[in-house]
Amino acid sequence: MKNGIENGYYHEITPGGFGIAIKAGKVLFSAQSEFQKVEVFETESDLGRVLTLDDLMMTTEGDEYHYHEMIAHIPMMQHPHPETVLVIGGGDGGTIREVLKHDTVKKVVLCEIDGMVIDACKKFLPTIACELDNPKVEILVQDAIEYIKDKKNMFDIILIDSTDPMGPGEGLFTDEFYTNVRNSLKEGGIMVAQSESPFAQKISVQKMYVQLKKVFPNVATYTSNIPTYPGGYWAWAFCSVDVEPLKYFAQDRYEKIVKTCKIYNKDYHMARFALPNYLKELIG
Amino acid sequence: MKNGIENGYYHEITPGGFGIAIKAGKVLFSAQSEFQKVEVFETESDLGRVLTLDDLMMTTEGDEYHYHEMIAHIPMMQHPHPETVLVIGGGDGGTIREVLKHDTVKKVVLCEIDGMVIDACKKFLPTIACELDNPKVEILVQDAIEYIKDKKNMFDIILIDSTDPMGPGEGLFTDEFYTNVRNSLKEGGIMVAQSESPFAQKISVQKMYVQLKKVFPNVATYTSNIPTYPGGYWAWAFCSVDVEPLKYFAQDRYEKIVKTCKIYNKDYHMARFALPNYLKELIG
Repeated sequence: MKNGIENGYYHEITPGGFGIAIKAGKVLFSAQSEFQKVEVFETESDLGRVLTLDDLMMTTEGDEYHYHEMIAHIPMMQHPHPETVLVIGGGDGGTIREVLKHDTVKKVVLCEIDGMVIDACKKFLPTIACELDNPKVEILVQDAIEYIKDKKNMFDIILIDSTDPMGPGEGLFTDEFYTNVRNSLKEGGIMVAQSESPFAQKISVQKMYVQLKKVFPNVATYTSNIPTYPGGYWAWAFCSVDVEPLKYFAQDRYEKIVKTCKIYNKDYHMARFALPNYLKELIG
Repeated sequence: MKNGIENGYYHEITPGGFGIAIKAGKVLFSAQSEFQKVEVFETESDLGRVLTLDDLMMTTEGDEYHYHEMIAHIPMMQHPHPETVLVIGGGDGGTIREVLKHDTVKKVVLCEIDGMVIDACKKFLPTIACELDNPKVEILVQDAIEYIKDKKNMFDIILIDSTDPMGPGEGLFTDEFYTNVRNSLKEGGIMVAQSESPFAQKISVQKMYVQLKKVFPNVATYTSNIPTYPGGYWAWAFCSVDVEPLKYFAQDRYEKIVKTCKIYNKDYHMARFALPNYLKELIG
């Protein structure tokens, strides 16, 4: 079975032979960009509209907060005063929307290689893309690998909200790229990168953490449920030169943040770094 | 699309319109018992063999430990000396296997309504059913609703490892049944019941917790990832007359237990009771 929509169902099956199925409705947008196939379709499900890239699930209206709250608030709440934030990938805008809930933020740079993703999400996924026109946001339709090369000491938080390590996202999983990201962090800065499915993509996960540990003195992992990713479970890498995880919590910003979230709260935040045995063994 | 195997794939789609798909192989066993359709099939996937009841996923060889470690060790490790354990449902034997890792246990009663499930699992899922012949196990092929009625003050731990609240499992989700379970617990006893998918079965979850709170003074929820259940996320209800969650941890048994587990460890145990906002709102 091929990934994508066929006979009324969207399927995504991992190389391991299992995955997800969603009752599909009308295709609202489908086009080949310079980089990938970009598609938005309606579903006959609680999930609402769905964005896929190269027939791989990126996000759905119905469960997107599971991902976006986790990639954004876990690092943001561990920085005392995040002012400058870089989001790499993330053209749907969901990560930006969560970042902008923090009043300390003065500027967010979105570096997304594919302008078609941004345009499609603005048009068809407005509840996710709603803050892309915020004046604090600078949108660069550009390859992050090139962009980051000469940026030194510029960002408090960098969020790598990328696709998988194949296709256009491949170069975002290299020692060289991670080194440039590290050098672009300010003192006390934190990078968080999506780090694949611990259950369904064990080899990718393992390889990525070997690379990250070469570059960052502090590398930790946190996980949470993503209902529409195969296996329902996702990991993020928390990386920093000088920040250890869970040493700081921005209590002064907490009340505002928690009120707007469907997942995120302080207990949940603290619990995310407790990992199952198999994942601890995998990443060493 | 109907649940079950068709055109080489097993599908299970929730009423919400999304679910799981697994590349199916040979059907090893398929029969209608007095209560339900019992099926074991091979998959062309990392998941190995699969048990379904009425075309709903029960367990797979490849991810069963996600469920069985969580239903067993979270309550077992919060009892200082669990000697007598009752497992309701759980005919595959996975919960029994985990319970018997605790050397304090003198007797486990398995009360499973459908003998065909036990027989099929013994034959086709030996890595899961491997402890069903342990001399500490008493197997009763019997309706737990009837069994529990006259049992008073008998069990340290009761684990409700049931199907969903429809079909043969329906009567296991009532005030009357929970009251009888409560009365069969000893002092310091704990009941844990599987309590459905917080993301995919919100109404069932909400209804169940209203009932549990009528019967038990202490009702808490813990959650974990189950890769092959729709949404990838599952909840269990931790209920007791006199035990609050996370007040006690059986450190003396810990080293032996953690060594044999793929998921369970102390940090993970402690983190499981931290819930996302939407689930806290759902169960009140």
